[in-house]
Amino acid sequence: MGLREEEIIAALREIFATSESAVEVGIGDDGAVVKGFDHQVLTTDMAVEGVHFRTDWSSAFDIGRKITAANLADIYAMGGTPKYLLLALSLTGEEELSWIKEIARGVKFEADLGGAYLVGGDLARGKNITLSMSAIGQCKEPILRSGARVGDGIYLSSLTGWSAAGLLMMTEGKTPQTPLQERAIAEFKSPSLDYGYDSSNAHALADISDALLIQGLQIANASGVAFALNKDLIMAAPEFSELSQLADSIDCDVWQLIFAGGEDHVFLCTGVDLPGIKIGEVKDGLGITGADMKKAPDIWRHFQ
Amino acid sequence: MGLREEEIIAALREIFATSESAVEVGIGDDGAVVKGFDHQVLTTDMAVEGVHFRTDWSSAFDIGRKITAANLADIYAMGGTPKYLLLALSLTGEEELSWIKEIARGVKFEADLGGAYLVGGDLARGKNITLSMSAIGQCKEPILRSGARVGDGIYLSSLTGWSAAGLLMMTEGKTPQTPLQERAIAEFKSPSLDYGYDSSNAHALADISDALLIQGLQIANASGVAFALNKDLIMAAPEFSELSQLADSIDCDVWQLIFAGGEDHVFLCTGVDLPGIKIGEVKDGLGITGADMKKAPDIWRHFQ
Repeated sequence: MGLREEEIIAALREIFATSESAVEVGIGDDGAVVKGFDHQVLTTDMAVEGVHFRTDWSSAFDIGRKITAANLADIYAMGGTPKYLLLALSLTGEEELSWIKEIARGVKFEADLGGAYLVGGDLARGKNITLSMSAIGQCKEPILRSGARVGDGIYLSSLTGWSAAGLLMMTEGKTPQTPLQERAIAEFKSPSLDYGYDSSNAHALADISDALLIQGLQIANASGVAFALNKDLIMAAPEFSELSQLADSIDCDVWQLIFAGGEDHVFLCTGVDLPGIKIGEVKDGLGITGADMKKAPDIWRHFQ
Repeated sequence: MGLREEEIIAALREIFATSESAVEVGIGDDGAVVKGFDHQVLTTDMAVEGVHFRTDWSSAFDIGRKITAANLADIYAMGGTPKYLLLALSLTGEEELSWIKEIARGVKFEADLGGAYLVGGDLARGKNITLSMSAIGQCKEPILRSGARVGDGIYLSSLTGWSAAGLLMMTEGKTPQTPLQERAIAEFKSPSLDYGYDSSNAHALADISDALLIQGLQIANASGVAFALNKDLIMAAPEFSELSQLADSIDCDVWQLIFAGGEDHVFLCTGVDLPGIKIGEVKDGLGITGADMKKAPDIWRHFQ
């Protein structure tokens, strides 16, 4: 392609221009200079074409939103507030400038939702498109995976499974026929974070980047407790009947979606009288109970 | 491969374990929690297999060192002191755990040289190996590219061109025959940063990640001045005769190496009576003069 690095950087500078005073030096020098915090969360999350997204499935805007949502979710999942983002982007050289700008606009859109600023980045050439983002946020009192206590309730900020249902439909080449199916596909392409969720009183917290069972087990193991999930509680969640309808319509076990689906970036936490959907209780012991599915979970993992 | 994400993360946690008190929460949760700084530099730099490194040319240890050096150099190039690193790593799935650990050991080795700590990361699968690092450092008074003043001297922390000579030899399949050739190849595989270089009095500063001419022009343009390079000054540098010998031995123009070679991560700065090699003066005007080469520079760029 005829695109030069300078051209791309100029376009990105324009999209990410900010008058935020905490951004002392923005895009364009060897690094950004920003006002930091006494306690801050640092996180990074990478999305690879063909693994985390497909350019024939998702718009550039959605791809930009998704990587940003994943990073913001990790900041929230530590009890933090996101503030700064860095994006390293490898491109094949076949992309149009307009496509790259749409990636940036997607990043900007999601960053705005989270109150964060993209302050720097890097461009590289690669065989496939890779987006690697890092996020920095303020964090007065981190909420760790190791904080769950016996007797805590287990809560979700919203119901998991929508993104996995969307992925399943895309994989099987199904065109959405209903609003629920459209919602699932939209959630897969770019998960809608629960920005308003108040996890400040949580004892333990994680975002569900892989699956409820995986992040549940991570919290249980880190805290030395057991997670007793309760299907009756989950079935009482307002979204359950919709998700159930959706699961039936795509011939899929709703519990597989809820327990083993991935990338909803829903918040999972334990504590007392927390907001959201109560899905179980923290007990003495090890592991997770109550997560029966029609078949053994076929959990999507990067390294199996 | 049979490697699971948990296995890799466990190995990385062990390699990057630290008792540094500023690292409040390290690898293993949704994000790291660290003590921040009032003014901090943020930077990111990505290295892609086949573009920035080749696994048949460089050891995993060197690849880990190189991406780390590139990130540390960007922090120094803002007048900062590096402190925290994040590494997102995409792997093809064909790598051995021992190879991945060598990447990590290379990162740790270079991070130790710079006094920085790797505190978090992400693993993904991809068609090629990609390392994407972000670095955070303290920066009391940033030194920008825009600070060059007419009358400043122009300085290099050490002579550029070694890495480009190494790349040229590797590209042409030449086996090193002399210590100088060995040094060039070592510099290409993993540049040795000028950690001891004192740039605190510089008016403008950048690290040479692309080429002396490119970063020189960036400083000149950002500062609204001209760079008058002086070959006589450069020829007086202690390293010049060695680099000249090397260039002759590989049938290459030494000025091409110095002016248009890339990825030495040498520091380029302007100011008065700075340490290092004086290579010219800042003048009124635009652009760069004094950089004559035997042929037009064939500067290596990601996006041309």
